[in-house]
Amino acid sequence: MTAILYELVGRDASRPFSPHCWKVRLALKHKGLDFGTRAAGFTEIPELEGGFSKTVPILKDGEALVTDSFAIAEYLETAYPDRPSLFGGEGGRALSRFVESWTQRTIHPALARIAALDIHDCLGASDQAYFRASREKAFGTSLENFVADRQSRIAPFLASLEPLRAIVAKQNFLGGETPLFADYIVFGAFQWARVSSPFRFMPAEDAVTQWFERCLALYDGEGAKVPAAA
Amino acid sequence: MTAILYELVGRDASRPFSPHCWKVRLALKHKGLDFGTRAAGFTEIPELEGGFSKTVPILKDGEALVTDSFAIAEYLETAYPDRPSLFGGEGGRALSRFVESWTQRTIHPALARIAALDIHDCLGASDQAYFRASREKAFGTSLENFVADRQSRIAPFLASLEPLRAIVAKQNFLGGETPLFADYIVFGAFQWARVSSPFRFMPAEDAVTQWFERCLALYDGEGAKVPAAA
Repeated sequence: MTAILYELVGRDASRPFSPHCWKVRLALKHKGLDFGTRAAGFTEIPELEGGFSKTVPILKDGEALVTDSFAIAEYLETAYPDRPSLFGGEGGRALSRFVESWTQRTIHPALARIAALDIHDCLGASDQAYFRASREKAFGTSLENFVADRQSRIAPFLASLEPLRAIVAKQNFLGGETPLFADYIVFGAFQWARVSSPFRFMPAEDAVTQWFERCLALYDGEGAKVPAAA
Repeated sequence: MTAILYELVGRDASRPFSPHCWKVRLALKHKGLDFGTRAAGFTEIPELEGGFSKTVPILKDGEALVTDSFAIAEYLETAYPDRPSLFGGEGGRALSRFVESWTQRTIHPALARIAALDIHDCLGASDQAYFRASREKAFGTSLENFVADRQSRIAPFLASLEPLRAIVAKQNFLGGETPLFADYIVFGAFQWARVSSPFRFMPAEDAVTQWFERCLALYDGEGAKVPAAA
């Protein structure tokens, strides 16, 4: 039976944008698994699989039902040990958590201040209402104010990427010559911005940009199949 | 034949302070190897092992002579595959580079702005002259100016530790229940400050402080045997 990945979308069901769903999509490709996808808006998530999870991704794989991107990667690693490893061993699994922690505390908040209003604008009407209310409460300001000075945030954001840049300037992926789940963790964040926002902030010559393009090209251009927001 | 680790010291040869040498000392303990240490000041390094390296650590292990802390860890992992692993597999080795990159770009520069003058004050006379000249050229200012506003740097430094804090608040070590070389990479930085500077900047209740104390206690308190600077 083919696995099913539930992904977050806006008005256009062909444009999944959640960073966490993208991590899983590339993890499934990495494992060479056949899978289908199902699109859901924010407000449709509670109806999926009998209210299984408040968030996507959700992976249904035979009898297994798993949510949370890292938990799904761990599930895939255990369920398909003979396929290419997502972690490269126990140490890689442990340190992927550090890459996740860094990504969620360095890249995600910065990209939210760049793309939050653009994400809103991609959504269907009921999702827009949910997104604006929940995010404006979390951010303590309007979406418009939250992204108003995004131009001035680019330089410090680019500086904050230096720990990643120093690695991918010297080798293809965080995993080395070939990618690991750690690469998909960081890729998901940039893909989130690429799919949801037409605002361009990454210099073409930046080693991080070039690493991201390598990720977009993986698995017959799985990530590139969804065009950048225009 | 017992391995020899060449370490950096100041006037007091019993107080090695280099972050990179501490990484190796704990890596040797992790592997359960017998080793002796030899102390060297900055200006004595060029004389070690026939001018083998401009920097310490240097490890001499039988016929092998290796410098650079990460290269030494890789050497130990290959030479002693039956001892406890420093990386937990190839993925862990690759992602340890990201931990190193983050540590050297987030923690090291911040601790230099806290401890640079104290490090200078620990050194012997000829090392003081070398250290002041080389660091003041690199920093573009006097050592005194470089650390003058260190009190105001503590809060942003503590904030920058959040990716680490989020992990070690939930588990004992970056490696999980037990430490990996990745832990020693970060430990080395804090031990550098602890041994060289009496300035206290880590809150006792901080999860990072508590993780550091766990690291100090490893291997019968190997790190704690050198008392904190007073």
